[in-house]
Amino acid sequence: MQKKVDATKIAVIGGGSWATALVKILSEQNVRINWWLKNKKDVDYILQHGKNPNYLSNVPIDTKKVTPTTNVRKALEGASVVIFVVPAAFIGEVLETIPAADLKDKIVVSAIKGMIPSENILVTDLLQKTHAVPSQKICIIAGPCHAEEVALEKRSYLSIAGEDFTAASVVADLLQCGFVKATVVEDLYGVEYCAVMKNVVAIACGIARGLNYGDNFQAVLVSNAMLEIELFVDALSKKERNWNASAYLGDLLVTCYSPYSRNRTLGNMVGRGYSVKAAQVEMNMIAEGYYAVKCVYELNKKLHVQMPITKAVYNILYEKISPSVELRILEDSMC
Amino acid sequence: MQKKVDATKIAVIGGGSWATALVKILSEQNVRINWWLKNKKDVDYILQHGKNPNYLSNVPIDTKKVTPTTNVRKALEGASVVIFVVPAAFIGEVLETIPAADLKDKIVVSAIKGMIPSENILVTDLLQKTHAVPSQKICIIAGPCHAEEVALEKRSYLSIAGEDFTAASVVADLLQCGFVKATVVEDLYGVEYCAVMKNVVAIACGIARGLNYGDNFQAVLVSNAMLEIELFVDALSKKERNWNASAYLGDLLVTCYSPYSRNRTLGNMVGRGYSVKAAQVEMNMIAEGYYAVKCVYELNKKLHVQMPITKAVYNILYEKISPSVELRILEDSMC
Repeated sequence: MQKKVDATKIAVIGGGSWATALVKILSEQNVRINWWLKNKKDVDYILQHGKNPNYLSNVPIDTKKVTPTTNVRKALEGASVVIFVVPAAFIGEVLETIPAADLKDKIVVSAIKGMIPSENILVTDLLQKTHAVPSQKICIIAGPCHAEEVALEKRSYLSIAGEDFTAASVVADLLQCGFVKATVVEDLYGVEYCAVMKNVVAIACGIARGLNYGDNFQAVLVSNAMLEIELFVDALSKKERNWNASAYLGDLLVTCYSPYSRNRTLGNMVGRGYSVKAAQVEMNMIAEGYYAVKCVYELNKKLHVQMPITKAVYNILYEKISPSVELRILEDSMC
Repeated sequence: MQKKVDATKIAVIGGGSWATALVKILSEQNVRINWWLKNKKDVDYILQHGKNPNYLSNVPIDTKKVTPTTNVRKALEGASVVIFVVPAAFIGEVLETIPAADLKDKIVVSAIKGMIPSENILVTDLLQKTHAVPSQKICIIAGPCHAEEVALEKRSYLSIAGEDFTAASVVADLLQCGFVKATVVEDLYGVEYCAVMKNVVAIACGIARGLNYGDNFQAVLVSNAMLEIELFVDALSKKERNWNASAYLGDLLVTCYSPYSRNRTLGNMVGRGYSVKAAQVEMNMIAEGYYAVKCVYELNKKLHVQMPITKAVYNILYEKISPSVELRILEDSMC
């Protein structure tokens, strides 16, 4: 008989806007949440004012349910489910502070939509590699879901992807609430790679907008992107997939079309002539797609998938080729 | 040996914004265009001022190439290709003024994205029924393409769908120009039904926006809509299709996301509480989706496809059920 997972204590590791949104959603349940944030002053602020000073600061944090802390090991103590939600570029250093034993027997969830720079592996690959988390215990939280709309309690949908239906269902049940519907998708890698790729495509959409391309062009760009994503993901992990499901197409759409998308915003600024550096400074936020495109580009050197959109974004961001030149090449490759 | 089609004279039947955009695109070629418009005063205005007084009036019309007329039979004379581009609700009465012989041996193109009210058939079905146009001679022009962006010469893509590759290629070649890429898709019915359905979905998106649903919801709505479209189109005409192609997904996206979409605008007004009648009067434009949803709904009585989005839009527009009630039902059916 399967042991019932006790899901009454959850650890949320990360202090950004998506972490804050997840804490808000989880607070709808009868659970206790240990919330790890990096900076003591943020923890103190939350304890004193009941809100995150830096992100979604209109969202009230119920400190009767939520215990903020800067001590990651303390946050993990007694939690049956741990959700990592920091930028992919920083997950490595967070994991270094956690002994593998601290994650043992827990359901380990990644709400990170990026890849590990220079290693070119997924966040869930890293969890397996460094902490030997078994793949049956790993899930990811995918969209389509912008944190800003969760803060406003706008009707949203989440896709919980995992290899093990039971584990994914535990997470889905935790996230289901009055304004969120969570659905299980049994495709960990497909959904995670798609979530990585959507940020690359959103940068491309932003660049096109910045260069004054219109809605007609963007519709074709996103359609072509779905083909590119399918080819790439199938090359990595072939499987029967319903590509129009919210976990794939929906997540791509919200990222490409929403003004909340920071990846789109980065692209827009680059398209309008900002240097990548200047755009990043101006935005003061991490756009995962910036790192992801390099990982995808390098990973694809072995796969040889036709990826004209990824190539264009890579060339613009890393090879300093003019956005208008790259978009003109892209124009001709699309149909 | 196949007879080469002489494509130097084209007839464009219709005077709206999409007709004006097509006249502009065709004027990029070395062709002569006979342009039928309903009202003599519009013809006179074009002859005198070189622009359409009512639609896209910033677009110059080259009257050395373009001959406007109110005489439909004269417009058809000598044309090897005829493009119908009037609202679906009016195509019947236009066709009544044209003897079948006048369309003989011509490539007959529909740029109409709607169905024939009360008959619940496609425009191309009507052409075959009333004028015995052979299906090999019929094409449709699909998007993703808003007339307003064509007017601005923004990079756009057209899909030319037909059963006969040669005929569709003739049309594609005519529409290919510096700012338009036209691609042939050998799927007349699939593309035409998808073009009909996208307007229904755009109304749903507009209603959601009008009711203050956000980007997260719309992304899920559009993803679910692709599933609904696939099931419906496959039930009508089963065929291997690449649903992510611009002719299907792209056309849906531009209609659902662009502020130029009149169907989305109609939905938005209805969502905000306008009556359908008041919204139509206010817009002073035909939203094809209003008629299409009734045709699709009735057609589906025989097919029994699960179509929650179509049902919601139908109930709101025709059964006067409250948009917020219908959207709440839709919320629950989606994932």
